[in-house]
Amino acid sequence: MAALNEFSLIQTYFNQAAPEGYLGVGDDCAVFAVRPGYQLAVSTDTLIEGRHFFADTDPYQLGHKALAVNLSDLAAMGAQPKGCVLALAVPAINQPWLQQFSAGFYALAQQANCPLIGGDTTRSRSELIFTVTVFGEVPLTQALRRDLAQVGDDIWVTGTLGAPDLALGYLSGQWPLDSQRLAQTRSLLEAPQPPVHFAPHLLGHAHAAIDISDGLLQDLSHILQASRCGAQLEWSQLPMHPALQGIHTTQQLKSVLTGGDVFQLCFTAPASERAYLLKLAAQQGVTLSRVGHITETPDLVVLDAHHQPLTLPSQKGFDHFSL
Amino acid sequence: MAALNEFSLIQTYFNQAAPEGYLGVGDDCAVFAVRPGYQLAVSTDTLIEGRHFFADTDPYQLGHKALAVNLSDLAAMGAQPKGCVLALAVPAINQPWLQQFSAGFYALAQQANCPLIGGDTTRSRSELIFTVTVFGEVPLTQALRRDLAQVGDDIWVTGTLGAPDLALGYLSGQWPLDSQRLAQTRSLLEAPQPPVHFAPHLLGHAHAAIDISDGLLQDLSHILQASRCGAQLEWSQLPMHPALQGIHTTQQLKSVLTGGDVFQLCFTAPASERAYLLKLAAQQGVTLSRVGHITETPDLVVLDAHHQPLTLPSQKGFDHFSL
Repeated sequence: MAALNEFSLIQTYFNQAAPEGYLGVGDDCAVFAVRPGYQLAVSTDTLIEGRHFFADTDPYQLGHKALAVNLSDLAAMGAQPKGCVLALAVPAINQPWLQQFSAGFYALAQQANCPLIGGDTTRSRSELIFTVTVFGEVPLTQALRRDLAQVGDDIWVTGTLGAPDLALGYLSGQWPLDSQRLAQTRSLLEAPQPPVHFAPHLLGHAHAAIDISDGLLQDLSHILQASRCGAQLEWSQLPMHPALQGIHTTQQLKSVLTGGDVFQLCFTAPASERAYLLKLAAQQGVTLSRVGHITETPDLVVLDAHHQPLTLPSQKGFDHFSL
Repeated sequence: MAALNEFSLIQTYFNQAAPEGYLGVGDDCAVFAVRPGYQLAVSTDTLIEGRHFFADTDPYQLGHKALAVNLSDLAAMGAQPKGCVLALAVPAINQPWLQQFSAGFYALAQQANCPLIGGDTTRSRSELIFTVTVFGEVPLTQALRRDLAQVGDDIWVTGTLGAPDLALGYLSGQWPLDSQRLAQTRSLLEAPQPPVHFAPHLLGHAHAAIDISDGLLQDLSHILQASRCGAQLEWSQLPMHPALQGIHTTQQLKSVLTGGDVFQLCFTAPASERAYLLKLAAQQGVTLSRVGHITETPDLVVLDAHHQPLTLPSQKGFDHFSL
């Protein structure tokens, strides 16, 4: 098979036509319009082999994840996906790998209405690295920000907690895991599904939001710091993934409260929005849990079933420089 | 000195306030508005140590270059810079290095009116890698594209050609170079100055444009292929950098015609625009040269002083997978 250079690589694997109205791959820039009355929301995230994923991760799922972690940031602002660009650095050209990677990327791009409209491919010395930048639209001044939580707000979490951490700990040799639990949790680590279509419906209803990438306690802390308030969570209300039932409590606490790679939302909303939110979640097929409320006291407390504060695991979530 | 984690690193080195109207660093996304009547132009480029720059490159200049190569893509569309995000992966935290890198980045960002509004920092295994994504505004339907050159158009080049290649060849051990020539050319390699403020004034006057990143012949070829036409260039009109005077003709041809890393513009415009373009260039302090014209015959020919076609060096420019 002929060697591929940069141009034929892009033409072969990353050249699905951009939708009507976009100038996509093939010029110096991608060009598109933002709807009147909307702002543009932008986020960028890098994934590096050995740090954010294992070298032997299924490339289809990796393509999915590269985009998913960025869509999660758009969801956290309540923004609707508009498009994305991919900068891919690979140490060697492995065509079956690229084929699978691009298939996984495009599949999620289509599902999320987030077309790939540009990119850059280059060769790295030894590491597989991709940086995705996503663009979304959000109505003027309505973005869900970290600094808008209000005392008395309910705190909500989408999806479940703990599964990605449980799988990650096993795969990185930190603890054993039976094959059934691994099967239940691994896809949540490797192919997260941020609530992309759900999030824009929070505008005008929720106050503050963040995506859970570094662990619930750490990410919620960012909201609390930015909004100058505290929070009380109830352990019994946290949506622990079923695969964590029956494992040691210490492990449950760690995985649920500090486990990263979740890519679901934590947001706050006034109590008057409960009915709306529960109905919306049902319509969208999103698991939604009310897990606590915002307090004036600037502490983050988790109460056990007897309403006693739990001794928390270190609140340090995933720090990209701490490994 | 205390160890820096990801958060304090961003807070220390990449936390200059975003301008009025932007939600910048510190939330899940950056958010900004696009002016009515304008589209958004987006480009992303990755620079990798050992491939796009030497490990010992001055970090201030590297910060400049990381942004410059992307601004060059905006200029090639005639887009006005609007903002950028930076994804930085470093194998270790070197505070003096980071301080210099961010200073160089911010200096160009300010000069180009392209505020840094978001980013991601992470640790790589061994390579220094940065991906910058830039956003620009361009009036609806007016972007300078590769596929709009017309037969009879003049071909223009901004700046000079050959200097970055001459410096690069010396620094990578391909050929000797005296210290004076090195001093004259090195800064053009390490701190390119794309014509950011000049380019938007081409809208409505130029037809097609591209930035010269992989070599004049290769980049112009992209215009010719996209526009289904050919070109005739005159060697004597090409703006060879003065440092190339007196070196061997073969070397001159190679560096001027196929040397990459130029980050200046090649564009086409009808002959009726000559007076406008020359006046504009004078006003903007941009060196502008008319170097040939677009032909119907789909060949790319360079004529010597006697109007004879030159035997060209391999038209292969810099291919990010060919090293």
